Amino acid sequence: MIGIFDSGVGGMTVARAVEQCLPDHPLLYLGDIARSPYGTKSARTIIEYSVENTRFLVQNGAQIIVIACNTASSVATDRLRQEFNIPIIEVISPAVQQAITRSRTGRIGIIGTRATIRSGIYEEKIRQQKPEYKVFPKACPLLVSLVEEGWINKRETKMILRRYLHDLKNQQLDTLVLGCTHYPLLKQLIQTRIGKKVTLIDSSEATAYFLKSYLGAKEDYQPKPHHDSGQNRYFVTDLTETATHIAAKIFGRNIELLPIQNFPN
Amino acid sequence: MIGIFDSGVGGMTVARAVEQCLPDHPLLYLGDIARSPYGTKSARTIIEYSVENTRFLVQNGAQIIVIACNTASSVATDRLRQEFNIPIIEVISPAVQQAITRSRTGRIGIIGTRATIRSGIYEEKIRQQKPEYKVFPKACPLLVSLVEEGWINKRETKMILRRYLHDLKNQQLDTLVLGCTHYPLLKQLIQTRIGKKVTLIDSSEATAYFLKSYLGAKEDYQPKPHHDSGQNRYFVTDLTETATHIAAKIFGRNIELLPIQNFPN
Repeated sequence: MIGIFDSGVGGMTVARAVEQCLPDHPLLYLGDIARSPYGTKSARTIIEYSVENTRFLVQNGAQIIVIACNTASSVATDRLRQEFNIPIIEVISPAVQQAITRSRTGRIGIIGTRATIRSGIYEEKIRQQKPEYKVFPKACPLLVSLVEEGWINKRETKMILRRYLHDLKNQQLDTLVLGCTHYPLLKQLIQTRIGKKVTLIDSSEATAYFLKSYLGAKEDYQPKPHHDSGQNRYFVTDLTETATHIAAKIFGRNIELLPIQNFPN
Repeated sequence: MIGIFDSGVGGMTVARAVEQCLPDHPLLYLGDIARSPYGTKSARTIIEYSVENTRFLVQNGAQIIVIACNTASSVATDRLRQEFNIPIIEVISPAVQQAITRSRTGRIGIIGTRATIRSGIYEEKIRQQKPEYKVFPKACPLLVSLVEEGWINKRETKMILRRYLHDLKNQQLDTLVLGCTHYPLLKQLIQTRIGKKVTLIDSSEATAYFLKSYLGAKEDYQPKPHHDSGQNRYFVTDLTETATHIAAKIFGRNIELLPIQNFPN
């Protein structure tokens, strides 16, 4: 069973891409809505929450973990790999790989939460492979709140995006990485704002493709059968109307969100 | 010692007003930044967090608790009064009292987070005393995120405020309650937007005044002496640069935020 966690509902863009890429693989999702968002918090706190989320998924049968949150991927991956003896997939390397493959000019922009951008992990991973590439990082902290409010196509969201993308627009980028799993919901607005010629890299899709090849190459992986219900399960640490609404928007169908009591105890 | 808690730094507007009203009373603050914001979460989760915050303050010597968060006040006050055998002061009743005293026309607007507005507690408390008054509630969910980002005077913040206050502007209000402890930081923008003739009720100030009269009337209250340092202490469940920045803005001086490890365990 594939375990996927995120700070809230943004990671469902990853879950949906995984469902589409790997329809036969049972999937267990955990959205930590009760402590959302992560991107404004310190690395120490994000690591602690990520360990608790992973523990929950493992206890409920996950054999492989996908950190469907760029913030948690950027600061907590090493720690999860130390603590848990199963494969830990993060969303950053697949996006970096795709960005490097698709960029022609080597001028790559990265947008993400404050914690992700502060970690510097995208630049680091790109420069390990392509030291000559120019990387332009930009923190866009309010976008997660705007998406979680469902303000996907509002004038104010466009204005805030304009402010955030202003500097990047003058950098002759040919590639822009959406370094937050909430951002695919704003893909159209971002494409319009940054310009049609810039290739957007969706870390959710990139991760699902990577997971598919990873599992394809892994001989010893036998997915455990589905839970009784035969359906993928979507757990949340808090249940809100807004979450239910965004989940339906992401999947294009109603998703039953299952609240966990007394998490993380 | 007066214990004050909030979901983050917004409640510091209450702490500051209390410092000014009651300079001789030692004060212990807890900002639950690690799980901030509360206003987008369910009542069940907000109650659980409020109990944990109160327990921390009591264990550290608080003899009276101020819930410096309208969201927590609106859903968790009854539960805290059941569980803890000390006075629990909330921020809603003092604001309601001031609004009723100052309104001439009985047309009162209320702005707050989604959880506060959904609770209906302002209407309920106003109607208990003034059934003939007209109350106009409006949820403004993004304002907390904007304040926590420090976007106090940005054009986008003004536009979002314009959208939120649009309906209220046509209701001939004479009084508007700032039903969230973050909103005093936006007081000027709100006053400009809603019009000079509308009286703004700041729940932070109202609560500090109420606390002063409450303690003045309470014969058996002897404030415990200050902690060794002789200073009020400001604890946070997570330490971020943004929080330090907003705290300085609220108090007009640098505030040392003390991070708590392993909260709430």
